[in-house]
Amino acid sequence: MTHPLFAKHEDTLNKALAAIATRGYWSPFVEMPSPKVYGETGNADGEAAFKAHTNHTFELDQPSTGETVGAELSPYGFALGTRYPKADVDTLIAAAATAQRSWRAAGPQAWIGVSLEILQRLNRASFEIAYSVMHTTGQAFMMAFQAGAPHAQDRALEAVAYAWNELRRVPADAHWEKPQGKNPPLAMHKRYTIAPRGIGLVLGCCTFPTWNGYPGLFADLATGNAVIVKPHPGAILPLAITVRIARDVLREAGFDPNVVTLLATDPNDGPLVQDLALRPEIKLIDFTGSTQNGTWLERNAHQAHVFTEKAGVNQIVIDSVDDLKAAARNIAFSLALYSGQMCTAPQNIYVPRTGIRTADGQMSFDEVAQALATAVQKLCGDPARAVELLGAIQNDGVAKRIDEARSLGRVLVDSSSLEHPAFSGARVRTPLLLQLDAATDLAKFSGEWFGPISFVIATDSTEQSLELAGSLAAEHGALTLSVYSMDEGIIEAAHEASIRGGVALSINLTGGVFVNQSAAFSDFHGTGANPAANAALTDAAFIANRFRVVQSRIHVAPQAVPAEAGQPA
Amino acid sequence: MTHPLFAKHEDTLNKALAAIATRGYWSPFVEMPSPKVYGETGNADGEAAFKAHTNHTFELDQPSTGETVGAELSPYGFALGTRYPKADVDTLIAAAATAQRSWRAAGPQAWIGVSLEILQRLNRASFEIAYSVMHTTGQAFMMAFQAGAPHAQDRALEAVAYAWNELRRVPADAHWEKPQGKNPPLAMHKRYTIAPRGIGLVLGCCTFPTWNGYPGLFADLATGNAVIVKPHPGAILPLAITVRIARDVLREAGFDPNVVTLLATDPNDGPLVQDLALRPEIKLIDFTGSTQNGTWLERNAHQAHVFTEKAGVNQIVIDSVDDLKAAARNIAFSLALYSGQMCTAPQNIYVPRTGIRTADGQMSFDEVAQALATAVQKLCGDPARAVELLGAIQNDGVAKRIDEARSLGRVLVDSSSLEHPAFSGARVRTPLLLQLDAATDLAKFSGEWFGPISFVIATDSTEQSLELAGSLAAEHGALTLSVYSMDEGIIEAAHEASIRGGVALSINLTGGVFVNQSAAFSDFHGTGANPAANAALTDAAFIANRFRVVQSRIHVAPQAVPAEAGQPA
Repeated sequence: MTHPLFAKHEDTLNKALAAIATRGYWSPFVEMPSPKVYGETGNADGEAAFKAHTNHTFELDQPSTGETVGAELSPYGFALGTRYPKADVDTLIAAAATAQRSWRAAGPQAWIGVSLEILQRLNRASFEIAYSVMHTTGQAFMMAFQAGAPHAQDRALEAVAYAWNELRRVPADAHWEKPQGKNPPLAMHKRYTIAPRGIGLVLGCCTFPTWNGYPGLFADLATGNAVIVKPHPGAILPLAITVRIARDVLREAGFDPNVVTLLATDPNDGPLVQDLALRPEIKLIDFTGSTQNGTWLERNAHQAHVFTEKAGVNQIVIDSVDDLKAAARNIAFSLALYSGQMCTAPQNIYVPRTGIRTADGQMSFDEVAQALATAVQKLCGDPARAVELLGAIQNDGVAKRIDEARSLGRVLVDSSSLEHPAFSGARVRTPLLLQLDAATDLAKFSGEWFGPISFVIATDSTEQSLELAGSLAAEHGALTLSVYSMDEGIIEAAHEASIRGGVALSINLTGGVFVNQSAAFSDFHGTGANPAANAALTDAAFIANRFRVVQSRIHVAPQAVPAEAGQPA
Repeated sequence: MTHPLFAKHEDTLNKALAAIATRGYWSPFVEMPSPKVYGETGNADGEAAFKAHTNHTFELDQPSTGETVGAELSPYGFALGTRYPKADVDTLIAAAATAQRSWRAAGPQAWIGVSLEILQRLNRASFEIAYSVMHTTGQAFMMAFQAGAPHAQDRALEAVAYAWNELRRVPADAHWEKPQGKNPPLAMHKRYTIAPRGIGLVLGCCTFPTWNGYPGLFADLATGNAVIVKPHPGAILPLAITVRIARDVLREAGFDPNVVTLLATDPNDGPLVQDLALRPEIKLIDFTGSTQNGTWLERNAHQAHVFTEKAGVNQIVIDSVDDLKAAARNIAFSLALYSGQMCTAPQNIYVPRTGIRTADGQMSFDEVAQALATAVQKLCGDPARAVELLGAIQNDGVAKRIDEARSLGRVLVDSSSLEHPAFSGARVRTPLLLQLDAATDLAKFSGEWFGPISFVIATDSTEQSLELAGSLAAEHGALTLSVYSMDEGIIEAAHEASIRGGVALSINLTGGVFVNQSAAFSDFHGTGANPAANAALTDAAFIANRFRVVQSRIHVAPQAVPAEAGQPA
């Protein structure tokens, strides 16, 4: 009676379950865009598939008004021209509700099996998705491929594994038998049915539409809910491709494809989203975006369980460091990667004004600041190589923010525009690095400056740095905290600060791991313990409220023999 | 390094874990008030301990203003005269926050071990707690003992088991090692620290202060949170005793006893509770009570994760029945038990106006209504026996509601006052049973009439009965649904209705199990899938949001040998 798609992917599922339990390195989806894995023509085919979407109407056989929407602009300097079928919200909700009824009845193995099959198909479309991610988010190709495809698929699989881990712990039925002394026992047969919540709404973001959108989408799907995917109007295509693949798999498996639908919108869709988010049929909302919108959902969408990832202030505490150059290289990479447009990118770098200890002796604050500045400049010195790291600026708001930030403090490295060798209209900016002082500038650095904007902040001591790191994370939110120290006591104090701030800590990163990176199956992305996110990707809390258990009980014949009737058989 | 209290109770914990996984019958706390289990003088000692609390100030060594509060009235007709130390909210929160810091650092095994030790001590105090429950809630002694002591302890243990089941799945650390082709792998050591949310607030009710209060209290405690227990002003004593025992155990185990504190209040404490519930330090709220107050918390206490159990409309669908007398006896018992003041007590009994099929042939609607009326009358015919089932009416509001309800429809059985043989001032009322019609009276029976008030409702068909049952549960909430049918198809349809309504279903109860009863470790109490409760007692969703995981990572030497360096060792 095992669902065939469950059986097909059971081995992968079991490996994923082992991985989330032990949290060592594991990934089933190859992160290198290798022809050996993805086919000799994979790259070319994917790019062609992306190009075929431009200046074209995206085919999607879901309920539509007949009109089309869509106004995506590539940060590399051209309009996508992709149009999407416009959906009427009422019709879409009705279709999702209808589809959910039979989907619900299919049960956990079908939900898991279909989810895993969708993931396998998405993996095959990795190049197509990568180019779509690149030309909506502005990520450079390699990041668009890795974060947009295999890493996003990993995060999705992780959510499916957590879902199964929860679902499998609810038995389908039980025999309950309560002794009654000399009287026959009371005996009942009980059935436990998983009751999904209904319809989930996934609200995508414009920087990581798949990586941030997949966990909620697959967590909903794997627990029997229907899902309406509402991409950010600036990054529709990667999720549209995803929805189409999901619908193909659902249809082939004999389900109503409206279990997964797309709600594509034109820019400035706020009022539409607010109306939708308050609809009584919407029971789950997964949101990635601004603090303002996320907080609005948390405070108003009472009918739904709301999962949010919002803004935060990521911080680095430099106390002492063995190899300052290596540390500066690592930090500069984190600042430059996708132009600081990662929710995990550091912003505040605290350095004691009295300087720090290194293997090469004491370094002054200015020397440390200069080392960081030099590392950033080196990384961006060769425009052709730099653009492969920086990518492009997703929208004009980020570019304007760089200009606003410039006057906040002393400029250590100024941001400049770069020409992209392949895309003449690309919006490319190098990182802006400023110097601030904890004594006077708290108001400047206690909020998020999203984009390639960061601050080297003079503090009275590492103690003050850690105090700031913990309290800012707790008050304003943070997804990452990084510490550099050669002192075990300071590392332990940083650990305490990270718990106070509810933020993940990285210690002495000087090599090939960067604070921005979060590995599925091992790193919890976000904690839910500070305002940057009310949930982690992924843990039991991310899953457990997406379904309920409804039970029934009926008397049956006892299995045990009552005490007075002699020995049990 | 196992905490001694964890080791002491590990066997019980493992049995509880097995029970929640298989959901068969299991209980470690003996439900019969037997001298063999609870001691020859257990009953007398417990009653004496209760009496010693009356007209006395309850000693509690927690921060206090020096004043006292408390105005509990026994539904059996006397003022308790127990006074409790008054606590200042600011001082209490500060003390809880301080205590929580070291409690947090003690880690999961200490949280679980201490929680289980508290439960063992509570079990020893079962008689004292039973008399306190009896004289605050109005429950008859046997129910006060069972539901107030061992069954409440079972529910608490269940919450502790679920907590450990979640906590143990987060490894304390991991070795993460990512291959890098011919280069040495990236290797990191990761630590995962459980970060409790902070301070939990338990808001007790006046009918089942321990049974409904313990799950939240112990779920919080077992996941490392401090807890402020705010009993209903009408039922303080059972939770005051509980808090004192918890503090004793905490102190003996070397912890700050302010991990658990009591906030006793005088009646009409609404504004105080609202202020407290919005305090930023309060991260978890467990509430049992009115829909109005529960909904207010859900909509306003945004800083906390709020768990509520509110009002509901419990229903019985009678389609056909083998032995009508047995069914009527079972239903009448459910109506009379604690005078319908159980959140699980049935209110609406749907019977087709065309009558039903029984083993003795067709019965008309009136015959079914009369059978139910007769069964209620028989059960309450002998006042001395009846009061042991009915108990007393908790407060005047319930008594007044009976009077209001009387005019809603045709009276099948009128409610009357009974003299209690042992307590001359006891507020005892027999159940009121009215006849209504689904065609005209929906507005009358679609809300909760809390107390011994129920309706036999004529419907067009069982189909309509099930439609009403599902939709009322979904819209107005319900904790129980019961169906009587000899037809497999109808039972399956009832199962579908129960899933639509998100409500637990009992089928053909004619023997020693009653729809009001919910067995720990086997029955999920509430589902979280309809407005009667936003969570179940107890499942993973009841636990998973009470803590977060904060991780750290640091580079370590790889364990594997890179590919080019030859074979792995």
